[in-house]
Amino acid sequence: MNDFERRLQARIDGKTKPLGALGQVELLAAKVARLQGRLDPDMTRARLVIFAGDHGLAQEGVSAYPPDVTRQMVLNFAAGGAAANVFCRANGLDLAVVNAGVKGGPFDLPQVIEAAMGEGTANSLHGPAMSAATCQAAVETGYRLGAEGDWHAVAFGEMGIGNSSAAALVAHRLTDVPLQLLVGRGTGLDDDGLIQKHNILAQVSARVPGALGPMGALAEFGGFEIAMMTGAMLGAAEARKLVMVDGYIATAAALAAVTITPAARDAMVFCHVSGEPGHRVVLDTMGAKPLLQLGMRLGEGTGAALAWPLIRASVAMLNEMASFEEAGVSGAT
Amino acid sequence: MNDFERRLQARIDGKTKPLGALGQVELLAAKVARLQGRLDPDMTRARLVIFAGDHGLAQEGVSAYPPDVTRQMVLNFAAGGAAANVFCRANGLDLAVVNAGVKGGPFDLPQVIEAAMGEGTANSLHGPAMSAATCQAAVETGYRLGAEGDWHAVAFGEMGIGNSSAAALVAHRLTDVPLQLLVGRGTGLDDDGLIQKHNILAQVSARVPGALGPMGALAEFGGFEIAMMTGAMLGAAEARKLVMVDGYIATAAALAAVTITPAARDAMVFCHVSGEPGHRVVLDTMGAKPLLQLGMRLGEGTGAALAWPLIRASVAMLNEMASFEEAGVSGAT
Repeated sequence: MNDFERRLQARIDGKTKPLGALGQVELLAAKVARLQGRLDPDMTRARLVIFAGDHGLAQEGVSAYPPDVTRQMVLNFAAGGAAANVFCRANGLDLAVVNAGVKGGPFDLPQVIEAAMGEGTANSLHGPAMSAATCQAAVETGYRLGAEGDWHAVAFGEMGIGNSSAAALVAHRLTDVPLQLLVGRGTGLDDDGLIQKHNILAQVSARVPGALGPMGALAEFGGFEIAMMTGAMLGAAEARKLVMVDGYIATAAALAAVTITPAARDAMVFCHVSGEPGHRVVLDTMGAKPLLQLGMRLGEGTGAALAWPLIRASVAMLNEMASFEEAGVSGAT
Repeated sequence: MNDFERRLQARIDGKTKPLGALGQVELLAAKVARLQGRLDPDMTRARLVIFAGDHGLAQEGVSAYPPDVTRQMVLNFAAGGAAANVFCRANGLDLAVVNAGVKGGPFDLPQVIEAAMGEGTANSLHGPAMSAATCQAAVETGYRLGAEGDWHAVAFGEMGIGNSSAAALVAHRLTDVPLQLLVGRGTGLDDDGLIQKHNILAQVSARVPGALGPMGALAEFGGFEIAMMTGAMLGAAEARKLVMVDGYIATAAALAAVTITPAARDAMVFCHVSGEPGHRVVLDTMGAKPLLQLGMRLGEGTGAALAWPLIRASVAMLNEMASFEEAGVSGAT
């Protein structure tokens, strides 16, 4: 244990509580301290960035909702009416929406950052979702977006009808987990829909035999928003911002990011394990223990927006809580 | 389903999200709406009340900390340095401390509400922790404290060296759960200490054969703070305040409260399942699914203070989130 780690642990253990009695809150505070290289880290400014993109594969009926909903939901974010807006307002996070490639062209709205890589990906049943060059551009654009600004933490959310399919395919090819464990009902498929989704995804995966690296998997299966999130997580981690990962699709992006740059894992906190069954499986492969388990399955970064007060409070513990010495409290006998 | 329930469910289902996609957040919002009898409930003002009391049984070495710590921690709460203070400040809860019966007499501090039933309970190894009349007075005092003020939610925390022993005994006698499953390390006993604690609690329980009702169990095993919390939960529930239960000891009080008045259960939300193993067992007997699972085992209402933003955000969802109709978003196909 180096000197910083010793001082950090002594600072946490000296607080007026039994050793380890704040559980995950202590681990979270230590993670932030390490990320900032400070015993008194600053964790007050957070931003949720929602990356939106359409998926050619949505034509194959892999979602309970029509593809138009991606664009409609971006307008809902811009108007402040979605769950992510409500939770960000309630918990004091900034919110930005990125058009990573939504059908219908630019939004011409001040609330939407335009970074479209196209109007939806190609249908990955018949060929790559995007070219290698486009994938590279999406990751680089994301990197810049993730690194910018003086945020202490950046949370990642997404919107894209069909994107739980792309996430399942990316996760399947970057881990050894069978596709069946990674395919879920998404926004609400029934039993028949779930079987159809699995069969289509098996065909998509079979189209690309052999090993795939993270950039290859993102290009083959998409989406624009997942590739851009991958880059943004890398950019935020490089800038020593806390990377708040939430939801199945953002977790697939996080998996791609740590496959590219393993050190990015140190910046990541996993905010919520969703009701989508593959999510817990992927979290387990990453050794990630999520902060919240509320059975949500909405995406948009809603779990991250709800977890932000926990992160802020953990750091407040480190900075504001009295030590046994300061408070004149006796230790364990 | 009555008309209110139909309208409430329609309001939740009409929000721009797949059906049920906000999981426990939806259930929580519905609980608050029912409690207030309103489709647009108000959930902005919360108070954490920490009940402190000493335990005669602490003389038997059932805790890793000396009994003096109860008083020292009340002073720490009054000075603003404990974890509960930090989390309440971070999340916008008011905090009050009640001297339910701490050794050393009144505190003479504006931050401490004096309601002492004595200077610590009697040692329950040799006789009742308190008389039936004192127990009744503690519950009644608590009832008034829980009902007062215009708080939308009241959270319950406690401080009392030895009180995980009292909680285990109360829970054991009000459920069919074996004592062994309910006795844990508290603030940090080692293996020998844990065995000793179990043996002493088995002797205490054997001292009082036959069935015990909730008032009997509280009087026999204590403590003042548990009896007062029981009353305060009943008072808050009767006043249609949300009762935020947190921690093993507060959950034992909640168990006593719902045994006295089953309808009080409708006002309760369980905020965190602690690392103390008996806690989950007692929650299961009450059919309670806690909001947070952070492995904390500190008490003080820390889990409730951390859960408050979730409760506030759930109600904001009900009040602020757009419907499919308002946002012009298509529904499922």
